[in-house]
Amino acid sequence: MFFELQHTAPGGAARAGRLSTEHGVVETPVFMPVGTAATVKGVLHRDLADDAGARIVLANTYHLYLRPGVRVLEEAGGVHRFCGWERAVLTDSGGFQVFSLADCRKITEEGCRFASHIDGSSHMFTPESVIDTQRSIGADIMMAFDECPPGTADREYATRSLELTHRWLDRCWEQYERTEPKYGYRQSLFPIVQGVVYPDLRERSAEYVSHFPADGYAIGGLAVGEPAEDMYSMIEVVNAVLPGDKPRYLMGVGTPANILEAIERGVDMFDCVMPTRNGRNGMLFTTQGVINIRNERWATDFTPLDPAPVSFVDTAYSKAYLRHLAISGEMLAAQIASLHNVAFYTWLTGEARRHILDDTFAQWKPLILEKITRRL
Amino acid sequence: MFFELQHTAPGGAARAGRLSTEHGVVETPVFMPVGTAATVKGVLHRDLADDAGARIVLANTYHLYLRPGVRVLEEAGGVHRFCGWERAVLTDSGGFQVFSLADCRKITEEGCRFASHIDGSSHMFTPESVIDTQRSIGADIMMAFDECPPGTADREYATRSLELTHRWLDRCWEQYERTEPKYGYRQSLFPIVQGVVYPDLRERSAEYVSHFPADGYAIGGLAVGEPAEDMYSMIEVVNAVLPGDKPRYLMGVGTPANILEAIERGVDMFDCVMPTRNGRNGMLFTTQGVINIRNERWATDFTPLDPAPVSFVDTAYSKAYLRHLAISGEMLAAQIASLHNVAFYTWLTGEARRHILDDTFAQWKPLILEKITRRL
Repeated sequence: MFFELQHTAPGGAARAGRLSTEHGVVETPVFMPVGTAATVKGVLHRDLADDAGARIVLANTYHLYLRPGVRVLEEAGGVHRFCGWERAVLTDSGGFQVFSLADCRKITEEGCRFASHIDGSSHMFTPESVIDTQRSIGADIMMAFDECPPGTADREYATRSLELTHRWLDRCWEQYERTEPKYGYRQSLFPIVQGVVYPDLRERSAEYVSHFPADGYAIGGLAVGEPAEDMYSMIEVVNAVLPGDKPRYLMGVGTPANILEAIERGVDMFDCVMPTRNGRNGMLFTTQGVINIRNERWATDFTPLDPAPVSFVDTAYSKAYLRHLAISGEMLAAQIASLHNVAFYTWLTGEARRHILDDTFAQWKPLILEKITRRL
Repeated sequence: MFFELQHTAPGGAARAGRLSTEHGVVETPVFMPVGTAATVKGVLHRDLADDAGARIVLANTYHLYLRPGVRVLEEAGGVHRFCGWERAVLTDSGGFQVFSLADCRKITEEGCRFASHIDGSSHMFTPESVIDTQRSIGADIMMAFDECPPGTADREYATRSLELTHRWLDRCWEQYERTEPKYGYRQSLFPIVQGVVYPDLRERSAEYVSHFPADGYAIGGLAVGEPAEDMYSMIEVVNAVLPGDKPRYLMGVGTPANILEAIERGVDMFDCVMPTRNGRNGMLFTTQGVINIRNERWATDFTPLDPAPVSFVDTAYSKAYLRHLAISGEMLAAQIASLHNVAFYTWLTGEARRHILDDTFAQWKPLILEKITRRL
């Protein structure tokens, strides 16, 4: 994988770049739609690629390990061939899921024992095993195994957790170097910076991970309950340390505002379930502001979903029709809203990129932010 | 609306025709996907038109009357503009739904009082009101209001019900003639033949409806619990009476086998929820036979969904991937299976049409039937 830093905003940290994978080029800043179980919920791959313009999607090691399982993925020849997605894939290591989804857990030095949220069966993830599993999945970008403490964790817990995450990173990297890709194309491994909201811990973690000659670095453990301002200041602390010539991925973030603030602070890659999850609940992020499509006020609004369309659905369907579908519990509502929202997120990061390259990001950001965060 | 009978199979009753509506030409035999609430569940309109090739969809007066309601549909300028579907629409009169879905009911000479399945609110449908509602919906083809007795109804009930349906038809027709389309294009009204499985009642009903100068005629009250052979013989009885130069619509039918048998007996139009409902449950109708995609045997079958593709999803996705989605409860499974199945039904009726025009229907039918009804 090769990252070319193309441009940095004058007097700022916002960056535009190009990430070349063996499954295509990804222009940054980029939003990666979340395809937990190798499906971005409610969106056909063709529409994800051709309409929403997604160049890379995220899948979850935890979910794919449980279903369909490593054997099926290996027989398929990796996740791309399994699900029919020819562009890039990044896999989360499963750390976040075993701590949040799996109902039992026991964290030891060795790793984490957890109970499947599907059938309660007992499994163990270790730094080595999650690398092996990610080799079997065959993502272009793999993530290190980390513990992800809550945003309210005290300093003592945060320090212990960080040290464990660093020791796990050592083991992940060793396993990464000991093993080969299974499907003939390169797989990168991104270390993850932790440290809750403690600037010194974040700095220490950023320094630690920077010693690994990785193709990119991730910032984890943010947007997990801490105030947004703390998140932004942690990003600043971390990005002051991380190598400037490598992509930086802010995990699981966030709202359109979060993303623009993070781009301004030098983040290149994002993922978040909001476009699809909120879409399923009837929330639309549009170029004119935020819409709760279930509101009575849209009942006879026959105007397009978004007058500045980011997806073909925006002009194909009206607000009144989408409201009718949502109120009637029709699955088409979730499909339309999910595709629109994913397209909106890719549009937003694409626009940010364009303005960075034009040296107009600083002027554009407050204007677009005011516009798209309005409640309609 | 104009129907041109293009060809009838030599020595048989199978027919090919062209139905011209103000929302496009519909070649027959035709399958009309069911869009109950003005959405074919799980399928984007673009894919329904361009991929599955649907030329006409069915919507339900009962559902649209309750949600979004007549006022919204009128403000939108009719159902086509409301839902963004530019091709033809047929609306069922709501008779079947008030008897099957609405939990309370009282049938009188006047009409039917029912409780909404959504909120229990009380409503009255009369022959006049369903014509008015269908005028507001703006379907290209409207259906008469009928009582639909079960397939096991005794002769006495069947006779009384039939006579009521005929008196209701008189009132529907009067209301139809008294009223005008609201959106500037012609709306046809199809009478419905009833009579359960009693040949003399079916014949009497077919004669009765034939006196109305309608653009087409429907056969109702079949596939409601009677043996398939009874259904086929009722179709023969009815089609021997109905005018040969008008389209014949067999309501709510059915399996691929039912449809081919009915085409052979001179039916031109079909609708059924099977492609979408069974699709949501993991059943695929393919050119090679019927698949229950949830079966373990597909877990590592990475071949296309259908080797003779009827939809773009057939080669975009493998059986193993679709099984994974279905087992994981992912909505994409329902989307893929629904689109495929609807495309299969339109493909099947399109193939039947082609073989009728080629004078090869009689030879083709048993071969394709054997092939597509296999359990894989």
